[in-house]
Amino acid sequence: MCQLLGMNSHAAASIRFSFTGFAQRGGCTADHVDGWGIAFYEPSGTRAFLDDRPASQSPLADFVRSYPIRSHNVISHIRKATQGAVGLANTHPFSREWQGQPWYFAHNGDLQNFHPPLDGSYLPVGSTDSEKAFCYLMQRLRTAFATEQRAPGWQALAPELAACNEEIARHGNFNYLLTNGEALFVHCSSQLASLQRAHPFPRAQLVDCDLSMDLGELNAQGDRMVIVATEPLTQGEDWQTLNTGDTQVFAGGELVWAHHCPRTRRFAVPGEALCGLISTELSATDPYQV
Amino acid sequence: MCQLLGMNSHAAASIRFSFTGFAQRGGCTADHVDGWGIAFYEPSGTRAFLDDRPASQSPLADFVRSYPIRSHNVISHIRKATQGAVGLANTHPFSREWQGQPWYFAHNGDLQNFHPPLDGSYLPVGSTDSEKAFCYLMQRLRTAFATEQRAPGWQALAPELAACNEEIARHGNFNYLLTNGEALFVHCSSQLASLQRAHPFPRAQLVDCDLSMDLGELNAQGDRMVIVATEPLTQGEDWQTLNTGDTQVFAGGELVWAHHCPRTRRFAVPGEALCGLISTELSATDPYQV
Repeated sequence: MCQLLGMNSHAAASIRFSFTGFAQRGGCTADHVDGWGIAFYEPSGTRAFLDDRPASQSPLADFVRSYPIRSHNVISHIRKATQGAVGLANTHPFSREWQGQPWYFAHNGDLQNFHPPLDGSYLPVGSTDSEKAFCYLMQRLRTAFATEQRAPGWQALAPELAACNEEIARHGNFNYLLTNGEALFVHCSSQLASLQRAHPFPRAQLVDCDLSMDLGELNAQGDRMVIVATEPLTQGEDWQTLNTGDTQVFAGGELVWAHHCPRTRRFAVPGEALCGLISTELSATDPYQV
Repeated sequence: MCQLLGMNSHAAASIRFSFTGFAQRGGCTADHVDGWGIAFYEPSGTRAFLDDRPASQSPLADFVRSYPIRSHNVISHIRKATQGAVGLANTHPFSREWQGQPWYFAHNGDLQNFHPPLDGSYLPVGSTDSEKAFCYLMQRLRTAFATEQRAPGWQALAPELAACNEEIARHGNFNYLLTNGEALFVHCSSQLASLQRAHPFPRAQLVDCDLSMDLGELNAQGDRMVIVATEPLTQGEDWQTLNTGDTQVFAGGELVWAHHCPRTRRFAVPGEALCGLISTELSATDPYQV
């Protein structure tokens, strides 16, 4: 099991508040110590930060928490290795380009006997089932829209992805976050929760560390965003649990498409251990924090 | 004009010493203020850091200088925009995957009337001539080795790249660094210099800031590495100037292949301004520094 965090926001927003709690799961409030990564879709382009150290002890994670980056889409992942050695090549999120768009993908789960027919359009660099699934998803999209001259919109992509999800999820839990910067595509096999925030923004309290923040001071009236995470990051907010077989698409900070596949099953997952709250400081001066 | 820095090393080595001087060219000793990036091929995989701020003022550049990363191959680039807006999508090095290998590319020059027939295998995300050239190079390799089941070695790749270089360099200066982690491929249209370091390692003095280091204390007897840069980074060392039309390949810390195309021409380049030395501190505790 790994931990996923995603954001889709109407206005470019900072993920620092959520990431501060989330990073604690990389070795502190949960035992996911096999590296972490985060990809940002900023107004001028994308960038990712990857590290093979535990997120809770990573100087790079400290840097990311302190660096004010505003994005419309973010995907982050904290790894607990099931397949593939610990190392940068197996660290999520993975990235590939299609139709001049950078795509990022992060996965939580364990796919068994998964040998998709990869045609060479995209091949894994590392040795995880996750990257193999990402390459196959991208190959399926490339094939399905081979005659298109431009990147299709989420309206066209979503049904194609939902069909792939059903197929891949037969091999194991396939909880994932995928984005091309236009929309955040989400699939749930076993565990994911989402939260929409909009005016009036609450005062939020992280569950992984002793930190709260008045999000109303930091966000404007028209702002709205969706946070998706393996487990809720805050207490006292209206987190929605996704169901096994759900494919959801978020764009402009709201749910825009949903599909439920009743045939998808949830595979057994090893238990997770919690080890207490951590007191953490975070500057409240950066607006649009979520 | 931009500034390039590359390293190919027999043992995994830190680029911190060279990068410290190089980063000064991003707004201090030279006026390349339109972003910077660096890609590392570490033993466990690759990662890149990109920023659209000037390298000499970038907190991320400070972080990279302070973070002990050891790599066999490094490509770094400091941008002075000629084509394409300032922003992350136009920040080098660019990356694509082919045959399960991550490739990174950085370019110095300005290609005019360059409209290669891109078939969709790789398409630019940003709007630079550089990324277009990279996509075309990767497409040419993919096409030339379409029947291969595995990534070809540099011995097969080098002649194919040299042929592409001659073609692309007709459109303008095409100084570049390209690597798949196995070898560092280099092409010179107008300005590049290389330096091999091996035992006995010298005491090196950077030209862009007041910093010197005894590299003999930091490297072992069998180590060897090659540094490639737009302009020499140190004084008193035996930097070799590449000639217009040179394609060179470095592997295992040494020159392993070279080709000269006498038909390649050097295009006129606007002048560069220098603005004095900067005093900089760097820890000498990290071994294998170059």
